[in-house]
Amino acid sequence: MNKKALAILMRARMRPNDPSKLALSPLSNEVNQMLSNSQGNQAPHATEDGNEKLNKQRSFEVVRDSMHSAISMNKTEVLDAVLNDFSEGYFSLSFENRRKLLLTLAKEYDLNRTQVRELIKQYLGLQLPGVSGNEAQSGGVEDEGFLSTFYRIERNLRHSLKPVYEVLFERLNTHPGGLKVLTILRADILSILAEENISSLRALDSYLKEKLSTWLSPAALELHQITWDDPASLLEKIVAYEAVHPISNLIDLKRRLGVGRRCFGYFHSAIPGEPLIFIEVALLKAVAQTIQEVLWDHPPILESEATCALFYSISSTQPGLAGINLGKFLIKRVITLVKRDMPHISVFATLSPIPGFMQWLLSKLASQSKLGEAEDISCSSADRSGLTFYENLLEPEEERGLIESSGDFAAGKNGMEIMLNLLTPTSHDWTNSSKLLSAFKPALMRLCARYLLQEKKRGKALDSVANFHLQNGAVCNAVSIIDQQSPFGGRINSF
Amino acid sequence: MNKKALAILMRARMRPNDPSKLALSPLSNEVNQMLSNSQGNQAPHATEDGNEKLNKQRSFEVVRDSMHSAISMNKTEVLDAVLNDFSEGYFSLSFENRRKLLLTLAKEYDLNRTQVRELIKQYLGLQLPGVSGNEAQSGGVEDEGFLSTFYRIERNLRHSLKPVYEVLFERLNTHPGGLKVLTILRADILSILAEENISSLRALDSYLKEKLSTWLSPAALELHQITWDDPASLLEKIVAYEAVHPISNLIDLKRRLGVGRRCFGYFHSAIPGEPLIFIEVALLKAVAQTIQEVLWDHPPILESEATCALFYSISSTQPGLAGINLGKFLIKRVITLVKRDMPHISVFATLSPIPGFMQWLLSKLASQSKLGEAEDISCSSADRSGLTFYENLLEPEEERGLIESSGDFAAGKNGMEIMLNLLTPTSHDWTNSSKLLSAFKPALMRLCARYLLQEKKRGKALDSVANFHLQNGAVCNAVSIIDQQSPFGGRINSF
Repeated sequence: MNKKALAILMRARMRPNDPSKLALSPLSNEVNQMLSNSQGNQAPHATEDGNEKLNKQRSFEVVRDSMHSAISMNKTEVLDAVLNDFSEGYFSLSFENRRKLLLTLAKEYDLNRTQVRELIKQYLGLQLPGVSGNEAQSGGVEDEGFLSTFYRIERNLRHSLKPVYEVLFERLNTHPGGLKVLTILRADILSILAEENISSLRALDSYLKEKLSTWLSPAALELHQITWDDPASLLEKIVAYEAVHPISNLIDLKRRLGVGRRCFGYFHSAIPGEPLIFIEVALLKAVAQTIQEVLWDHPPILESEATCALFYSISSTQPGLAGINLGKFLIKRVITLVKRDMPHISVFATLSPIPGFMQWLLSKLASQSKLGEAEDISCSSADRSGLTFYENLLEPEEERGLIESSGDFAAGKNGMEIMLNLLTPTSHDWTNSSKLLSAFKPALMRLCARYLLQEKKRGKALDSVANFHLQNGAVCNAVSIIDQQSPFGGRINSF
Repeated sequence: MNKKALAILMRARMRPNDPSKLALSPLSNEVNQMLSNSQGNQAPHATEDGNEKLNKQRSFEVVRDSMHSAISMNKTEVLDAVLNDFSEGYFSLSFENRRKLLLTLAKEYDLNRTQVRELIKQYLGLQLPGVSGNEAQSGGVEDEGFLSTFYRIERNLRHSLKPVYEVLFERLNTHPGGLKVLTILRADILSILAEENISSLRALDSYLKEKLSTWLSPAALELHQITWDDPASLLEKIVAYEAVHPISNLIDLKRRLGVGRRCFGYFHSAIPGEPLIFIEVALLKAVAQTIQEVLWDHPPILESEATCALFYSISSTQPGLAGINLGKFLIKRVITLVKRDMPHISVFATLSPIPGFMQWLLSKLASQSKLGEAEDISCSSADRSGLTFYENLLEPEEERGLIESSGDFAAGKNGMEIMLNLLTPTSHDWTNSSKLLSAFKPALMRLCARYLLQEKKRGKALDSVANFHLQNGAVCNAVSIIDQQSPFGGRINSF
């Protein structure tokens, strides 16, 4: 399980490593193509190799002007041409110019703060109809005329706090192809923010994310079961975006869409022909222990004998939708559907990696080991357990097992030090020793359960994958070391 | 063209005359049915005859509690059951209890104004990064840490100005069947507001309308051409909701979906099986002069010979979506589609009534006639044109023609008085006299053109139908008296 695959699993598909290549991303080119087709090929072609072909790029000023028109034009005027113009122009810009344009948008099309102050003044000048909601009735100011003024000013204040760039977002959203443009704008914004922290742009991103969440409410999404009968242009996208367990060939794809398997996608009518997110499900007799059982089971079992639906892969296709939890709704709808169609299936589980465990464990071991050393120097005879931050992560019998199994290597070291020394090398040699493996296992399992269920950050599980599933209503059922290559993959069975 | 039909034309389908019957509206029952089906029939049945069967109604308190749960429950808890519970409960309430519940929602789930005040205080305490948007760069306060605090407080203030009831709306929107529930809630709110002006409820309505507009953005709507191959359950809805030119029988319906005709609907995935709005189009050799030409042309012309697409009917199906202009986007998309598929069609027009003309003309005539009388008394010899508000609506030759054609009847009366006297009786006897008809026509045509194009209210055309078309980019091409039964119907050709 590589880092990229995990990122996709969490619906935050990788940003291109070189941001200046964004203009070349398949997504952008696709939209460029779409837009130029819809313009009867009058549109200039998309830049073919980024910054080099500057002569094909529109000048920054031209695109900035079309952005201004798109925002400031009266809505009864014909907007479509302007929005097409802006979209095309944007895609033709170099990454540096896109950055400049997005900063212009964030800073110069922000709130009208003079107006906000003015409305705040008006608002504070009015006697409130009961300061807290519950007193509204007893406030005594029940004159409808007054109340109507009050609500009007409150509404105006609320509206004045919306940034001017909302207009661009709203207009693009109602414009054919515009939702796709917005997701690409956001992917670019995220690329920039990954490199530099710019508050105004972060505020714009947070606003755009809120809008996209609203527009992509499950009510606006269509659930579609993807099968071998779907168009090749759609299946090609499944192959391209599946990144948890890459699809190796057509036979593999056909298998994943065939007997004992399901693939469901969430589609939005404004982004036709590709799912925003899709999930792959295996129908099994029991929860699988390893992903190999799922990917390599020949022949499939009879569907009528299945009792378990295993969600073994979920992939998002739009980097610009990072952080918008569509997976939650998709999983819920698929569970409802499977329950309805196959009442004999009663176990719903996922087979998921635990990407943060290794890092967490190593840093815990390292910091405890440092605290231990510090103690050895400052008060060598004191009881270690008296130190505020010191904690032995291991149970006595786990420690004993570790020391016994590691022999000479362990001389003079405590259990945590042995563990740290053995786990640190990326070669993971210890996995080749069955003695070490069986001595390690109980401690690793227990610590992994603790990591998944007890370690939190702002009320969320520290592990991003675990948090995703737990928030969706999963319970943690079993943890196992399933991948000898990368020993800290594990699995969470859930729902 | 009756009043109801006009209201539907403007996407403001009639509220039931007796609000207490709302629980009986086909829409509500439908949803009730839907909900009880989805509950495996465990749900109590919908009230069958309103207030009478109180024993079948849930008590107000129970529904209020489920509303409270639906709003206040943590989002990681399972909400579906609670939302189903609330929806069912709501539909089982009498109109009086629905009113009570909606008022509770409007008043007790409003803003937290203590929090708003606190955030305003924090906000005003910060030095602004340039008061107007354009000065943001030159403000000099470029410390990212400070800016990030500033944007955070601004965002918090924006969020605090959102009423608590937004949570209910958002949750219903993401809940299967919830969008339909929201449209019914709004239909009820509009019924109440038609009877009494309650500021808090009006504020709630305006908020809900804004949310619905966002969720029903064209990007979330699917355009579908409705044909004779569509399911009967869908076609049945077309018959039920078509209210501009009622569909008399199956042959009539088939004709409207057949050669030389098109019917397009906007569908939302959360309200399956019925369009939110649909439009009927006739493909003709030239713009029709009367609706009869459209409805009764046998046999149809060859589609390849058509040069004109006439939009002869548009109907909205959801009373709860009143005021949300879906028609505008529908017309735009249909025009694009027809242009693409049939490039030989170059004229896009509508044949529309002018519902407000008669009323406007009569009140104009009456007020001028009063001003005239007042003048006769106060300054009988003065020049009438000197009076500030007095205006002869008729041109000299129109006045002459009217006086000559009306004979004895006109003795001592001026043109406007004659017009007023003849137009007032609802029997419209004058339409039977070809002499009067031809004398009236020039003045009526001219005044109608003035009414359509020059009479405005808050920048909008006074006539609601005209305003709808003019806002959509139509131009007024011709006005004619087309309906002898109701002589002030007319038509606007457009686009």
